Amino acid sequence: MTSPETFHGWLGHDSSAAQGNLKWAAFTPKPFAATDIDIKVSHCGICGTDIHTLRSGWGPTHYPVCVGHEIVGHVVRIGSSPSASRFRLGDRVGVGAQAASCLKDDCEECSGGLEQHCGKGFVGTYNGKYPDGNWSMGGYADYVRVPAHFAIKIPSALKSEDAAPMMCGGITVFSPLKNNGAGPGKRVGIVGLGGLGHFGVLFAKALGCDKVVAISRSRNKAKDAEAMGADIYIATSEDEKWDRKHSRSLDLIISTVSSPDMPLSGYLRLLRTNGQFIQVGAPEDNLPAIAAFALIAKGCKIGGSQIGSPKEIEAMLEFAAEKKIKPWIQTRPMKEANKGVVEMEDGKARYRYVLVNEEQEDQAKL
Amino acid sequence: MTSPETFHGWLGHDSSAAQGNLKWAAFTPKPFAATDIDIKVSHCGICGTDIHTLRSGWGPTHYPVCVGHEIVGHVVRIGSSPSASRFRLGDRVGVGAQAASCLKDDCEECSGGLEQHCGKGFVGTYNGKYPDGNWSMGGYADYVRVPAHFAIKIPSALKSEDAAPMMCGGITVFSPLKNNGAGPGKRVGIVGLGGLGHFGVLFAKALGCDKVVAISRSRNKAKDAEAMGADIYIATSEDEKWDRKHSRSLDLIISTVSSPDMPLSGYLRLLRTNGQFIQVGAPEDNLPAIAAFALIAKGCKIGGSQIGSPKEIEAMLEFAAEKKIKPWIQTRPMKEANKGVVEMEDGKARYRYVLVNEEQEDQAKL
Repeated sequence: MTSPETFHGWLGHDSSAAQGNLKWAAFTPKPFAATDIDIKVSHCGICGTDIHTLRSGWGPTHYPVCVGHEIVGHVVRIGSSPSASRFRLGDRVGVGAQAASCLKDDCEECSGGLEQHCGKGFVGTYNGKYPDGNWSMGGYADYVRVPAHFAIKIPSALKSEDAAPMMCGGITVFSPLKNNGAGPGKRVGIVGLGGLGHFGVLFAKALGCDKVVAISRSRNKAKDAEAMGADIYIATSEDEKWDRKHSRSLDLIISTVSSPDMPLSGYLRLLRTNGQFIQVGAPEDNLPAIAAFALIAKGCKIGGSQIGSPKEIEAMLEFAAEKKIKPWIQTRPMKEANKGVVEMEDGKARYRYVLVNEEQEDQAKL
Repeated sequence: MTSPETFHGWLGHDSSAAQGNLKWAAFTPKPFAATDIDIKVSHCGICGTDIHTLRSGWGPTHYPVCVGHEIVGHVVRIGSSPSASRFRLGDRVGVGAQAASCLKDDCEECSGGLEQHCGKGFVGTYNGKYPDGNWSMGGYADYVRVPAHFAIKIPSALKSEDAAPMMCGGITVFSPLKNNGAGPGKRVGIVGLGGLGHFGVLFAKALGCDKVVAISRSRNKAKDAEAMGADIYIATSEDEKWDRKHSRSLDLIISTVSSPDMPLSGYLRLLRTNGQFIQVGAPEDNLPAIAAFALIAKGCKIGGSQIGSPKEIEAMLEFAAEKKIKPWIQTRPMKEANKGVVEMEDGKARYRYVLVNEEQEDQAKL
C-alpha cells in the first residue's frame, strides 16, 4: 500500500467553481514530511465552507483549489515522526477542517489542547498555506496528504459515510454543546436545520438534554426535526410571537446560521437567566447590533465556537459510536461532485451530502 | 428609635432635575409591611443611574422621584417577618439598586440566588413600582423604607462612606469578576475608569489576578490607575495600535462604559482564546455591530451582568473588609446633592461622590 506521486481531485480554478464548474485533474501534493500521512480517500462530506471557498466568499481563494474537509479514508503512507507512526497502514482515519497548527510548547493554544485556535500556525485542510509555502488540498480527491496530528482514527462501530460529515459539521456543534454544559437538566435550542443544525439536534438529544428545541424559519423541516429528536419546533417566520411564547425557556442556543437580518434579539429572549447563545458556522456578515441591555438584564452571553481540537473530535466519534448517532446523509458518487455542490448550495441536502469514491466503497464500509 | 410617618428627601419633579434641580421636600413612603425595615440614612453614593433616571434617560421616570441606591444607614424600625427580624435596631446596613423581587419558591431566579434577574417582581430601589402600586423612593433622603431581604449588614471593619458606593458601583463589577474566574492565573482588563471601573481595578487586584489592565480613552487617569493597582494602562485614543500591541493578552474584560462608537472590535482583539468581555453599567444605546468571526475565531464571548444578589453583596463586603479595599471617594454634605449631581455628570468625581447626612456622620462612622 502506498500513494502515487501525483494525486487527482476536483479542482476549482476560479469563483465559477461554486456553480458546479469543478474540473477533475491531477495535482502535486505538498512534499511528504516525517509528520505526514497519506490517506486514500473513501468519503468526503460537502460542507458549506467548501462553497464559500470556491466562490472566494471570505476573500480571495488560492486557485486551483481542491476543497473538502470532511474526509474519511485509509492510511496508505506513514511518516517517521511519533505523531505519524502511531498509525498503521490501512487504518481508517478522518480529517476535519484543520490540517496544521504550530504545535509548539510555548503556544498557549496548542499546548492547552486548543489547536483550533492556534494564532500562529493554523492551516486549513484546503486553501491553507503551510509554513513551507505549499498550499493544502482537500478531500474531493483520490488521496490527501496531511500532518498526522490532525488525523483521527474512526471507531469501528461508525460507518465511514456517517463519520465523514462529523469531522467538520458534527464537531462544530458538538464542541460548543459539550463546552457549555449541554446535558441533563439543560434545555437547548438549535438555530438552523441544515448539515450542522441536524447534528446539533442529534447530539443535544443524545447528550440527555431535558429539552431540545429546533428553531428554523419555516415549518417545512418540523417533521424531520421531530424524527431527529427535537421536542419543540419553532418557525420564526410563521409562528406568531414565538419569542414571547417561548421566552426564558432555554439555557443554551447553538446558532448554525448567521445573517444581518436574523432575529437575534428574539433568540436572546428565549434564553433563561445566565443563558448562552453560541454562534458557529461560517457567516460572511456582521451579527445584528444588539442592545447591551439584552445581555445585562438576564446575565446572558453571546459567544462563538470554531470546529474542535483533535481530542474533541476523538471524544465526539467515541460518543457517536456509543450512542449510535445516525446522521441524516445522502451519498453521492465522487464523480458527481459538481452536482452535489450545486444541490448543496440550493439547500436540497437532507441533511448532508457525502461524496464516495466508489471503487473504495466496499473496503471502506464496516 | 423609630421612623417618622413622613420622610424627607431630594425630589426630582421633571427631567430638569438631572441638571441640579432637585428640591428637598417631604414625601410619604410606602405603607410599612411586615417584611420591611426603615433605615435612617447616613450615607448615599451618587451613581450614574441616578442621573439617567432623573432625566428619564431610559424611558419616562415616575416623578416625583427620590433617587439614590448606594445607601448606608442604621435600622430604626423592623417588621415582624423573619427576613426583617433578623436585624436589630441600630444595625448598620446597606441597600443597593434592588429593593424587591418576587421571592417565590417557584421562581427559578429567586430560589436560585439570582434575585437580581427575577423576571416577575424586580423593583428598583427608586422609580420602581411595588406590587401594591406604591413607588419606591431612594436614599437622597433622611430615611428609606425597604423590604429587609435586600438590606445587608455592613461588616464593622468597613467605613460607611466606603461601603455605600460598593452597594451598586462595587457589586456591579465584583459579581462579573467573581463569576468569570478573576483571580490568580488570570489577566483582567477594566474598560472605563469611573466609579465602577475604579472598583474593577481595586477588586481585580485584590482578587489576585496576574495582571490588571486599565483601559480608558485618554491618558489622564493613568497615574490614578497605577495607584489603584493597575499594572498596565491603555489609552485607546492616544496609544497607537493599542489593540495590536496588546493583542491576545487578556482572559477577561469588564466594560463599564458603552457607546455605539466604542472600539468593541479592538477590545475583542485584546482577548485570549476563550476570553470573555462582560458589559456592565448602564448604557442607553446598542453595542456596535460586530463580526461573528471576531467571536468564532477565538471562541470568545460577550456577556452582560447586572448588579448582584444579596448574597453576592454580602460576600463582596466581607471580601472588601478582609482585603482592606479602600475606594476612592469624596464625601459631600447631603444638602449639596444638587452640586454633587451636576459635578458627577460633568465627570469630576474621583471616583465616587458620597452624600453624607451630617448630623448622623459621627454615629455612622466606626
